[in-house]
Amino acid sequence: MNIIDLNDASRALSDLRTARPLVHNITNYVAMTLSANVLLALGASPAMVHAVEEVEDFVSISSSLVINIGTLSPRWVEAMGLAARKANSLGKPWVLDPVGCGATPYRTNVAASLATLRPTIIRGNASEIMSLAGAAGAGGQGVDSTAASAQALDSARALAKKTGAVVAVTGEVDYVCDGHETVGITGGDALMPLSTALGCALSAVTAAFAAVRAPFAATVAALAVYGAAGREAALRCNGNGPGHLPAELCDALHGADLAMLERHAAIRASVTA
Amino acid sequence: MNIIDLNDASRALSDLRTARPLVHNITNYVAMTLSANVLLALGASPAMVHAVEEVEDFVSISSSLVINIGTLSPRWVEAMGLAARKANSLGKPWVLDPVGCGATPYRTNVAASLATLRPTIIRGNASEIMSLAGAAGAGGQGVDSTAASAQALDSARALAKKTGAVVAVTGEVDYVCDGHETVGITGGDALMPLSTALGCALSAVTAAFAAVRAPFAATVAALAVYGAAGREAALRCNGNGPGHLPAELCDALHGADLAMLERHAAIRASVTA
Amino acid sequence: MNIIDLNDASRALSDLRTARPLVHNITNYVAMTLSANVLLALGASPAMVHAVEEVEDFVSISSSLVINIGTLSPRWVEAMGLAARKANSLGKPWVLDPVGCGATPYRTNVAASLATLRPTIIRGNASEIMSLAGAAGAGGQGVDSTAASAQALDSARALAKKTGAVVAVTGEVDYVCDGHETVGITGGDALMPLSTALGCALSAVTAAFAAVRAPFAATVAALAVYGAAGREAALRCNGNGPGHLPAELCDALHGADLAMLERHAAIRASVTA
Repeated sequence: MNIIDLNDASRALSDLRTARPLVHNITNYVAMTLSANVLLALGASPAMVHAVEEVEDFVSISSSLVINIGTLSPRWVEAMGLAARKANSLGKPWVLDPVGCGATPYRTNVAASLATLRPTIIRGNASEIMSLAGAAGAGGQGVDSTAASAQALDSARALAKKTGAVVAVTGEVDYVCDGHETVGITGGDALMPLSTALGCALSAVTAAFAAVRAPFAATVAALAVYGAAGREAALRCNGNGPGHLPAELCDALHGADLAMLERHAAIRASVTA
Repeated sequence: MNIIDLNDASRALSDLRTARPLVHNITNYVAMTLSANVLLALGASPAMVHAVEEVEDFVSISSSLVINIGTLSPRWVEAMGLAARKANSLGKPWVLDPVGCGATPYRTNVAASLATLRPTIIRGNASEIMSLAGAAGAGGQGVDSTAASAQALDSARALAKKTGAVVAVTGEVDYVCDGHETVGITGGDALMPLSTALGCALSAVTAAFAAVRAPFAATVAALAVYGAAGREAALRCNGNGPGHLPAELCDALHGADLAMLERHAAIRASVTA
Repeated sequence: MNIIDLNDASRALSDLRTARPLVHNITNYVAMTLSANVLLALGASPAMVHAVEEVEDFVSISSSLVINIGTLSPRWVEAMGLAARKANSLGKPWVLDPVGCGATPYRTNVAASLATLRPTIIRGNASEIMSLAGAAGAGGQGVDSTAASAQALDSARALAKKTGAVVAVTGEVDYVCDGHETVGITGGDALMPLSTALGCALSAVTAAFAAVRAPFAATVAALAVYGAAGREAALRCNGNGPGHLPAELCDALHGADLAMLERHAAIRASVTA
């Protein structure tokens, strides 16, 4: 059993800051700058490297890898496969973010193909996870989910069993499952979906935690820390809208500690919903 | 006659927020994140998709499309043509933003070629519109205009007649024309040209309005809302410079209403200047 | 002798704002938006153009060029070579930023190859400069330096002699050398490495100054202005973290003057450390 509580999440954060893992990002153009800033604020060291000519070499010097399919093209897909295989061969954790899976056949096929390459962790919204699991009726509006995260729980469990990955479905409530067990995490804020690429940056944060914890604990810690910081950041926006949310999120992650976690996040083990 | 006033613009904004249109962006690397955040803050749902392998499928599920040539390469140009043709075949509105038209022959040729594909709306600065209309002496410094918007009015009208598009020239005063009629919109602030990609994001906003209004009304509403929000955002920068302008602009768009429009924008019909 | 003081740097800034140079950026995806905003806030006119089909034409209309290898791919490398050669043939200054040199063989080879094309100025962190100079034991964690800037001084001097470029090594203290002389510049803040792409944007700023001053003076002025503005911006973050640093940096650059330089920066000539 993966019993993880807020104290564990806080200790994982401390270890991350000490280790300062180098996180290799193959991510979309929209999310690159935010992902880098979020990782730096959290205490990790980010790099964005996607050329077929160097991705494998870069995996070799990195602590973990995130592959995000937000803005696809064939050469990048080739690099994603090379990087994933290299990470596997070196036993390094990697996170798959199947952005917009289900929106177009190309996108769905690429996500499905990457999911066969034994990702350590898969993180997506409800529509993406349902689509990737092959669920009928997986909704979605482009890259935004039209389904609540709880609706995707069965799909998440099936996907975890099929791929061997820890699967996270994020939304108003976040869920993490590994085929055996499911944990629910609350936190975050309704303002977050109004600022772009926050989910993508969360996948990068999950990869950072995967450098210092086993996959299930890493994912739960990442979601708890990010949810708490997201809520803190939204409060600091003072009801003025989402404009300053990315900057506030970086500040909140920079200052995140156990007190912030206890103020804004909760982890519920053995969720059956 | 296209009589549009601030009340109409405000109603269009309400309808946009209700419809939450999915706006497909093929835009430049510099503008992607801001365009996404501006669209989210306004109440639309953005997606950035540019691969030849999926652009047509994505047009099919989108409400409208923006094609922005800011950072060009041949595969993207190919995708732009596919997406524009698909939008036409499905009767979906699309906006052409001819960034830097006139700066290099490649850029001018690509813009001219896209302009033949019956864009619903063309939005650019004075130098770009003059160059695209084939005017002699269209100035420009890279992607910034060296001409005032009023200087481009004849070019805008000629371009509207030639392409069938509604043409918007934006600058200190914005103009919208369709070959028959011209409307002038005031708003905005001198701080706006000091923050990158605000014009590109305006093209994305125009595409969002085109999902809920006919092209002329959509363009006028977009310029009025954006101009008012831009002015509001600039005021909130308190004379400290343009650093926080993108964030303030998102907040202002998020909170935009008729009162903000009346405070900062004006629409003058039947402009002859 | 290149005697440069804060008064000279301030005058160079005034001249830059008057000239409003068009700075051509071939830079990485992470740094594009920030580089554009930093250049606009400073008073320059930025453009991001990288297609093989148009880079040479764009160099022809630009005042200076920056080539940054942060996110590489073969077509971009081809464009970088074309742009550098065109700048040389027209006598226009260009800045090389060898991001992550040493992290992978591909990256190191591309940087070394560009360094043979007579860059006017090379700016990097200690690990990058040491790697590019061929120093044994050049550390580095991805794109972040693991060495202090003073450790790279010998490498910087050797690189300046080998390439003919003015070489800047930036870090807690910045150094500029041309093979004969070395100047040290203090300024900046420990918060700066916690926000992404600030070094890349500094290379763009250096290119802007190179449009109005000879290479050595331009580099020193750029580092002094940027260091002072960076320190000012960090102070305005009020200890809340790096989230608002990019916006504050733009505001500080927008308002930079001799008083800000005197408050936060110092130039020490004839450094021998």
